[in-house]
Amino acid sequence: MPVNQQLLLDNRPVGEAIASNFKLVSTDTPALQDGQVLVRHHFLSLDPYMRMRMSDSKSYAAPQALGEVMIGGTAGEVVESRSAKFQVGDQVVGMGGWQQYSVVNAEQPGALRKVNTTIVPLSHYLGAVGMPGVTAYYGLVNIIAPKVGQTLLVSAATGAVGSAFAALSKARSCRTVGIAGGAEKCHYAISELGFDACIDYKLHADAASLSKAVKAHCPDGVDGYFENVGGMVLDAVLPRMNAFGRIALCGMIAGYDGRPMPLSNPALILTSRLKVQGFIVSEHMEVWPDALKELGTLVATGQLKPRETLAQGLAAAPEAFLGLLKGKNFGKQLVKLI
Amino acid sequence: MPVNQQLLLDNRPVGEAIASNFKLVSTDTPALQDGQVLVRHHFLSLDPYMRMRMSDSKSYAAPQALGEVMIGGTAGEVVESRSAKFQVGDQVVGMGGWQQYSVVNAEQPGALRKVNTTIVPLSHYLGAVGMPGVTAYYGLVNIIAPKVGQTLLVSAATGAVGSAFAALSKARSCRTVGIAGGAEKCHYAISELGFDACIDYKLHADAASLSKAVKAHCPDGVDGYFENVGGMVLDAVLPRMNAFGRIALCGMIAGYDGRPMPLSNPALILTSRLKVQGFIVSEHMEVWPDALKELGTLVATGQLKPRETLAQGLAAAPEAFLGLLKGKNFGKQLVKLI
Repeated sequence: MPVNQQLLLDNRPVGEAIASNFKLVSTDTPALQDGQVLVRHHFLSLDPYMRMRMSDSKSYAAPQALGEVMIGGTAGEVVESRSAKFQVGDQVVGMGGWQQYSVVNAEQPGALRKVNTTIVPLSHYLGAVGMPGVTAYYGLVNIIAPKVGQTLLVSAATGAVGSAFAALSKARSCRTVGIAGGAEKCHYAISELGFDACIDYKLHADAASLSKAVKAHCPDGVDGYFENVGGMVLDAVLPRMNAFGRIALCGMIAGYDGRPMPLSNPALILTSRLKVQGFIVSEHMEVWPDALKELGTLVATGQLKPRETLAQGLAAAPEAFLGLLKGKNFGKQLVKLI
Repeated sequence: MPVNQQLLLDNRPVGEAIASNFKLVSTDTPALQDGQVLVRHHFLSLDPYMRMRMSDSKSYAAPQALGEVMIGGTAGEVVESRSAKFQVGDQVVGMGGWQQYSVVNAEQPGALRKVNTTIVPLSHYLGAVGMPGVTAYYGLVNIIAPKVGQTLLVSAATGAVGSAFAALSKARSCRTVGIAGGAEKCHYAISELGFDACIDYKLHADAASLSKAVKAHCPDGVDGYFENVGGMVLDAVLPRMNAFGRIALCGMIAGYDGRPMPLSNPALILTSRLKVQGFIVSEHMEVWPDALKELGTLVATGQLKPRETLAQGLAAAPEAFLGLLKGKNFGKQLVKLI
């Protein structure tokens, strides 16, 4: 049995998350029982939702238990199998957690998904053709439901979700505007991701200033907004929403540290007759097949060119994760484990 | 031609609205042209939305013009007609404004509606079987869309909208809880309007305290919330919303005076996967026929017993309106003009 490096949640953050919230340990992988497979993880996905799980405040999911392996999506290869459903060598995606190996009950529906890496590289199944891509799809198709020619805006525009959102939005002939941090990201958004415009929020000290920039880049107003950030950015966008606009609320990174993050003028939801809807993509499994099909095609045809930031080795995961929360990554943040 | 008393908007409020924002004048009613009718108003409706129109900040409707007759719903009788569509003596509802008479172009679709006062008294067409009733209907049926047995909550519970909401909610077998100001209103909500419980917000100094009361009276959480108030009340309710709850945003009285009224914790919309939707009933004319039919039946069968507060004479309208904004009215606030 191979030795398995694991990262546990050792203690909960007080305010900002820090590296010492995690603890690296080594254990032996247990012997397989009937119906189980052993997966060697090639990639670990790092995602903003993990920050919420680290706290034990009210959230949509149970908090991550202390002393246990951090939750996380993984892509890898079956290296041992006692299930008829999987063969050694199968490329698979699952929720293996922050560790090098996982033992998976292959009989459990949805626990492990075989993927085809002939055209789409394995790592993309954790990003554009995985949970982040489907997240963008659900918010766009099921909440924003845009019409041709409408203006759509997304924050964290160059991240895994924002990148997929841009490709899906352009495929529906919508004017597609991003908000990202820094000139380099904004340049990338336009030149590589197909955004029509991108606003660098780091150039703006407050919501009023950022709101003017949104107005300048969305001269016809904003019909649909995909929110990954919250805080000042949401305050800046809300006054720019057109009547009957839709806001898909997917993330509020700015608030994960427990700082109070009020919405300055919620009356705009009434005066502009907006729909603001929060969602978690894992509760909408019914859209996954259609979403993955479209996203796979967009990647295969080059309309969606996901960029990845790779950290090397499990021990690098905490710092990479903390960087993600501060927007230091470029595109999808992964940890390469082999 | 009769002399017509009118109330004009003379100047815009700075902060709180005051009586001297209005100006009482007398004019002669003009001679009718072909297609016009002269309506003598029996009742003028006073509604919170009027406060928003008095300011010229961004809103869903154009601001009320200075020096012109204040906008408002009216119920009255045709006293002169040069239209084949209306006869002298017809009971009609329209948007006649804050004045004793109005000249209406009867050819304009929707400008004037004939009503039957055999069973439903004329004044109710400005309340339970009019715009406020349809407002409750739209929020309940089209946004909250409750299932049998769910818990629904409404603020300003004993007002015209809240009263209708209660009857519509009970007709759908939902646990129906109100929020109102004062013991008398709460008693009335339960004994007359059919609420299962009513929370007196005046007993609570802050959102945390009010939130505890909501929890106590909604032990299974809140599935649908009809918001007429905003501010502290919305802050108190948001943490009590169940997953996938719906909030119909109809009014934000607390914010009409231009005071900033932030929402303390908008991240709850995400973590509880809520839908928050603002609406204006006049933009959804398609629901009016079904809504008026159900509301008329509820009134006719005694399941909805609307209470009215009557101010006497047009000159009393400003003070009655300012009282409405402070919750001094009991049920539907009207001005009796004859």
